[in-house]
Amino acid sequence: MENKDLNASNITVGGIYDMLLDSVNNEDTRPVIRLGRVDPTDNPLFRTTNVALDAVTTSVHSFNFNCYPPTHGLLQAKRAIADHLSSHLPHKLSAENVFLSIGGTQAIDIILPSIARPGANVLLPKPGYPQYELRASLCDLEVRYYDLLPERGWEVDLDSLENLADENTVALVIISPSSPCGNVFAYEHLKKVAEIANKLGIFVISDEVYAHVVFGSKPFVSMGEFSSIVPVISIGSFSKRWIIPGWRIGWIAICDPQGILQKSGIVSKITNYIEITDNPPTIVQQAAIPEILEKTPNDFHSNNLGILREAANIFYDGCKEIPCLTCPLKPEGAMVVMVEINLSQLEDIVDDVQFCSKLVKEESVILFPGVIVGLKNWIRFSLAVDPSDLKEGLSRIKAFGLRHAKLS
Amino acid sequence: MENKDLNASNITVGGIYDMLLDSVNNEDTRPVIRLGRVDPTDNPLFRTTNVALDAVTTSVHSFNFNCYPPTHGLLQAKRAIADHLSSHLPHKLSAENVFLSIGGTQAIDIILPSIARPGANVLLPKPGYPQYELRASLCDLEVRYYDLLPERGWEVDLDSLENLADENTVALVIISPSSPCGNVFAYEHLKKVAEIANKLGIFVISDEVYAHVVFGSKPFVSMGEFSSIVPVISIGSFSKRWIIPGWRIGWIAICDPQGILQKSGIVSKITNYIEITDNPPTIVQQAAIPEILEKTPNDFHSNNLGILREAANIFYDGCKEIPCLTCPLKPEGAMVVMVEINLSQLEDIVDDVQFCSKLVKEESVILFPGVIVGLKNWIRFSLAVDPSDLKEGLSRIKAFGLRHAKLS
Repeated sequence: MENKDLNASNITVGGIYDMLLDSVNNEDTRPVIRLGRVDPTDNPLFRTTNVALDAVTTSVHSFNFNCYPPTHGLLQAKRAIADHLSSHLPHKLSAENVFLSIGGTQAIDIILPSIARPGANVLLPKPGYPQYELRASLCDLEVRYYDLLPERGWEVDLDSLENLADENTVALVIISPSSPCGNVFAYEHLKKVAEIANKLGIFVISDEVYAHVVFGSKPFVSMGEFSSIVPVISIGSFSKRWIIPGWRIGWIAICDPQGILQKSGIVSKITNYIEITDNPPTIVQQAAIPEILEKTPNDFHSNNLGILREAANIFYDGCKEIPCLTCPLKPEGAMVVMVEINLSQLEDIVDDVQFCSKLVKEESVILFPGVIVGLKNWIRFSLAVDPSDLKEGLSRIKAFGLRHAKLS
Repeated sequence: MENKDLNASNITVGGIYDMLLDSVNNEDTRPVIRLGRVDPTDNPLFRTTNVALDAVTTSVHSFNFNCYPPTHGLLQAKRAIADHLSSHLPHKLSAENVFLSIGGTQAIDIILPSIARPGANVLLPKPGYPQYELRASLCDLEVRYYDLLPERGWEVDLDSLENLADENTVALVIISPSSPCGNVFAYEHLKKVAEIANKLGIFVISDEVYAHVVFGSKPFVSMGEFSSIVPVISIGSFSKRWIIPGWRIGWIAICDPQGILQKSGIVSKITNYIEITDNPPTIVQQAAIPEILEKTPNDFHSNNLGILREAANIFYDGCKEIPCLTCPLKPEGAMVVMVEINLSQLEDIVDDVQFCSKLVKEESVILFPGVIVGLKNWIRFSLAVDPSDLKEGLSRIKAFGLRHAKLS
């Protein structure tokens, strides 16, 4: 693996995962521990609800949903999502405010080209999610990075945000709850972000694929809460919260009670883009969405949050025992966390990519180098893994760190 | 509906369908007859096989396929498609030669950007399928049209094909069996197309979403049959043959025994493009593909072909009774047919768009104007409709034609 080949504009999370997997030493008879990719189905304790299975089964056997999907998605599904979101928002959304997408990824792939034009720029969090850079690089959209501050519980650096924007800035992206940092933004902090966006005359793209996945002391607050201050385009997904990433069900919601995005033409651009792009499959889209949203028992969610809370405890306690790693905040949301590598304590490791590359070869543990999410010399851990794998992985990383420790 | 707004580069089949549907006169109490869009689920006689339903149900309940799909698709599915195609080809394909796509549409959306570069051009059939123009207009790819000749049973105009190409021509597209013409290309004719492509130093993109959907005297011949003469990228789909367009399962197959596309870098470009684009959902992709291909009974296909043969008879006989229409060839494949409007016999209709627009308002019959598939003053009929709708539609068109007939 060549360090120089790795940067956010030419790699994908899936691509690096495959590369690391290829680096496993086949002579190591221990099982490979995968703490890199955030796929909740990797944890056997996570299982989607029977509600989802039954909904798809019923739909398939009805023969009613084998047809081509309507260009703008099935109305029942859009309405169900609008109702679901409205129950947590001060403004009611209608089916027309919702667009269906092939997972959260396609939502990004639809929104960015719809806001692109020569010279335009968008503000992204650092660290963040590589699909934004990747997609922006394919259209006329410059990216600029604002910092998330580990020393302040990964809050947005509000000053840098304001200084970064100019007259060509269209929007800022926030990922909330935060991937990859694992923090939950407080109501007052999100309100400040909304006020700054308002002042800058830009709108907010709020990536809420981890909406309601919170297990610390802070509640989830949707950015749509502040849509009277600033227009918000939110991104949602069933992948993580319902443990069905392979079903690829996501959405885009326009939270814009003053109709600013409508008047500016951005909603039309999204609509037009959807007309020429691939539509989500009908059987899953139609059947799963209304049924899942209406019938999933609360127990399903509270059990899953309990599992994540326990994983966060195991992780945080385990991490404290590893001298070469520092975790600045105990995870409180999402399914992922960032940890700093204390390179000064390591003898023959120069950066995060080398750390991950040597780790997979020596210990058969897969972690993601921070550089792929924009933070060099950090590493990204998934919490959506089997707790025994998490413990075993931390134990191997500890051994790896001690073996490479600088003799002081 | 404004005539000037209609051209192949700014409209989609779904978009025009929605526009025509909006033009229906709500005071007409008769049911709307939809002969425009080719969705086989519109015909109640067409139903997908229980094999497909059972495969999805089993997969969903196994909990094994809720994970993210692998970047390049599930191996079992790719292998099943390779085996399925190989049984009709002189050269065996392997799983590595197959890429999964979200229906045939995404296959187009992946292939065209992968062959685009400034100045490059691709040869398209006229009439054809608008997604090709639409996608080419979004990347650096000029389109040039070769004719399909109605007076020769919609054969390719081989002379014009040869004259059209230059040193910047990358590939030619053929849709076989032919949408929208409804003809089946003979073995010898396809061989000639392959030989011309070889002479021109270009490759062939063979859109075979209607593979094996033939009900006349000619058998289906895959362009891959001639891959020793010219490299072929074929596009396939479960949508039409298995009556499940909403499931969005398609594929790309590289039929290139001499490895020319590999050496030229086109296969890498397709691979790279797939890494950054949306993947087909796992549960459908995984479960449906191997099971459907291995277990669908032959009866299922032969029954469906019998239904289409009957529809072709009804259509062709009915069309002969309508003076303002001429069908140059009795349909023998695919699910769609082109018919010429004899405008000289009509008093107050100037073109195909006005024909379709007045028809939907006066008779609540939806047809597609030929201009959207590149053939002005023709119309496109779907044969994948309820036979009673087909009869009723033809009867209303006959009345419409007589009402607008020029008094000689």
